[in-house]
Amino acid sequence: MLGNVIVGQSGGPTAVINSSLAGVYKTAKDLGAKKVYGMRHGIQGFLQKRIVDMDEKIRSDLDLELLKRTPSAFLGSCRYKLPDDISSNRELYDNIFEILKEYEITAFFYIGGNDSMDTIKKLSDYAILINSDIRFIGVPKTIDNDLAVTDHTPGFGSAAKYIASVTKEVIRDGLVYDVKNVSIIEIMGRNAGWLTGAAALAKCEDCEGVDLLYLPELPFDVDEFMKRIGELLEKKNNVVVAVSEGIKTAEGKYVFELTNHTEYVDAFGHKQLSGTARYLASIISEKYGCKTRPVELSSLQRCAGHLTSRVDITEAYQVGGSAVKAAYDGETGKVVILKRVSTDPYICTTDLYDVHKIANIEKKVPLEWITENGTYVSDKLVNYIRPLIQAELTPIMITGQPRHIVIDLEK
Amino acid sequence: MLGNVIVGQSGGPTAVINSSLAGVYKTAKDLGAKKVYGMRHGIQGFLQKRIVDMDEKIRSDLDLELLKRTPSAFLGSCRYKLPDDISSNRELYDNIFEILKEYEITAFFYIGGNDSMDTIKKLSDYAILINSDIRFIGVPKTIDNDLAVTDHTPGFGSAAKYIASVTKEVIRDGLVYDVKNVSIIEIMGRNAGWLTGAAALAKCEDCEGVDLLYLPELPFDVDEFMKRIGELLEKKNNVVVAVSEGIKTAEGKYVFELTNHTEYVDAFGHKQLSGTARYLASIISEKYGCKTRPVELSSLQRCAGHLTSRVDITEAYQVGGSAVKAAYDGETGKVVILKRVSTDPYICTTDLYDVHKIANIEKKVPLEWITENGTYVSDKLVNYIRPLIQAELTPIMITGQPRHIVIDLEK
Repeated sequence: MLGNVIVGQSGGPTAVINSSLAGVYKTAKDLGAKKVYGMRHGIQGFLQKRIVDMDEKIRSDLDLELLKRTPSAFLGSCRYKLPDDISSNRELYDNIFEILKEYEITAFFYIGGNDSMDTIKKLSDYAILINSDIRFIGVPKTIDNDLAVTDHTPGFGSAAKYIASVTKEVIRDGLVYDVKNVSIIEIMGRNAGWLTGAAALAKCEDCEGVDLLYLPELPFDVDEFMKRIGELLEKKNNVVVAVSEGIKTAEGKYVFELTNHTEYVDAFGHKQLSGTARYLASIISEKYGCKTRPVELSSLQRCAGHLTSRVDITEAYQVGGSAVKAAYDGETGKVVILKRVSTDPYICTTDLYDVHKIANIEKKVPLEWITENGTYVSDKLVNYIRPLIQAELTPIMITGQPRHIVIDLEK
Repeated sequence: MLGNVIVGQSGGPTAVINSSLAGVYKTAKDLGAKKVYGMRHGIQGFLQKRIVDMDEKIRSDLDLELLKRTPSAFLGSCRYKLPDDISSNRELYDNIFEILKEYEITAFFYIGGNDSMDTIKKLSDYAILINSDIRFIGVPKTIDNDLAVTDHTPGFGSAAKYIASVTKEVIRDGLVYDVKNVSIIEIMGRNAGWLTGAAALAKCEDCEGVDLLYLPELPFDVDEFMKRIGELLEKKNNVVVAVSEGIKTAEGKYVFELTNHTEYVDAFGHKQLSGTARYLASIISEKYGCKTRPVELSSLQRCAGHLTSRVDITEAYQVGGSAVKAAYDGETGKVVILKRVSTDPYICTTDLYDVHKIANIEKKVPLEWITENGTYVSDKLVNYIRPLIQAELTPIMITGQPRHIVIDLEK
């Protein structure tokens, strides 16, 4: 029996994190949950009791459809890690369980990446410690696809589809003039190159594909890179390169740090990583005197609700629903994972996994999926990604723009 | 009677310039043209006799549909201005007419912006001079919308729709954390602010819209800007600003030139304009210590074939077709323009205009359509743009990506 349940979203936004929220909400209602609460801005808002009744926010099936199609996090998100040292932070943990008690919560769902799975781990551990029977289930999402054990994470497929599609367009755009030019597309993924690898999908019947592709899994050699660009410019007009924002030299320095730009850090103390494409474009332009174009996909790649993968949106929904089903079945301390049964035809199911075995492990692109010289990826990566970008969920267009559902407008 | 005709594309790529090409091709065939030739890379390729038979490239109605949906210029484009001084360049002009004679051309269509209309003007003038009855008709396109006389230019509507849509997504993305942050969206348009103005369309029932909007029509005051950002950050979390890449200080210096970045010029000697958003983001971050995000829409805004306006694509096709109809009717030295009959309901027709009265005049956003303090635009601009972004032409998706038609793949 599900009484009241609560759901939150955490970590970076994706185009489909709200589809998981829709899956949690709808399945919880279908399985008889009395109240489905949502926490604003994850566990951080929860601690301030910023808790909403989802029934007041999702009023119709149309709202639910809009929710699936709305990028970013409907409930708001946070970056907040619960303290590792539980014994000296019992007050905080007790506070969480008091709030849960106050709202008569029986199950807690948290949609997010590595940090969020860590939250599920700690809370389910603490529940055992204090003999609480509240169930805690993790719902993975991250465009970075860097979560262990699960075949892939919801959010990755749509970001990959966006990257593969706009890369095709950037290639067409670069061919417009009969002059030498180099485009450098900068793609998210600080440590894992899954998203940058998705640019390889641009190569198909009607497209040349990118010429070079650099993942953060291998060190980046600027001189070697410049040599390759020179060779390509001898042979063709339009050279297109995809680079991860996080590529580093053998000395461990980010490539964007090689520039003389003003640097700054964001509110979380992370160095702003963008600038890699701009730096590479500027040194190419200087050395070869050709037209160059840095193209930073920046936040567009994670919030492009207007071009999502239906496979991804559907799986995101299923993963949310399966989390509720698991709690209903009495599970706790688990995370829902995606299990690929077959790649061709693509068949994928959900499964449950012990959260202790998954949290805080970062999954990178296997080195054997990168070509030996480190400038491209193998078909294995392409075949792995391809099924995840299939089909579309058409946005609901109102007066020419994709319609979203918002919890409230910021004045 | 149309015998053989030829068509070329010139200037920057757009998402719908190929729809105009489709309109020229189909209408020419329907009106009985024997051969429809295409010039590779505009007049520049024409001078090298890089001429193709369009029947060999467009083999079916499906190809025609793909052509409408393929961004960039199918035939390739150029930036080439015919010399003004005709009398001392008669050899060049004679050469053009010899090639036209060789291919038995009766009508010449050129799809492009201001420079292309200038080409039509010069060639039609020269035809009169040498008593040639070849007809020359201009087919306008430019995402910048800076062409005089025509209500708007094909290409603008789709770029505006893309900008309006992704601006909504960037705003949603910025609201995800409960922290102060400023996004600066940098939009194309060196001298005219039409595209930047399109960001104002993000404001609708489900979206807060951008907070500030700076067009290149007015000088940009950095101190004033910083003051406004400070005031906004006092009031709200998520501040979003749209700026034209071409904004300049009162002293006439580009804002991006205020930075200490390595600067470089492109192959045409134009200074690379991007960097405005990055510069503004860095000084905001420095002064207010908050998270900032520069988002450069760069070439994505002009090649986003995956999100086009059906109104725009249809009008682009009609403008191409009307050009052929005009030549069929014996017109020359004309450009097809769009005439807005009514805004609500939106009704628009094509008309013909003397190319001498249109070439080389740059149309900017009327100053009375910009708010007095220069930080936003009036409803007049929004109402002008809104009809142009309506409805979609769904891409033909193959294995998860929009399919294009290409004249040949670059090896």
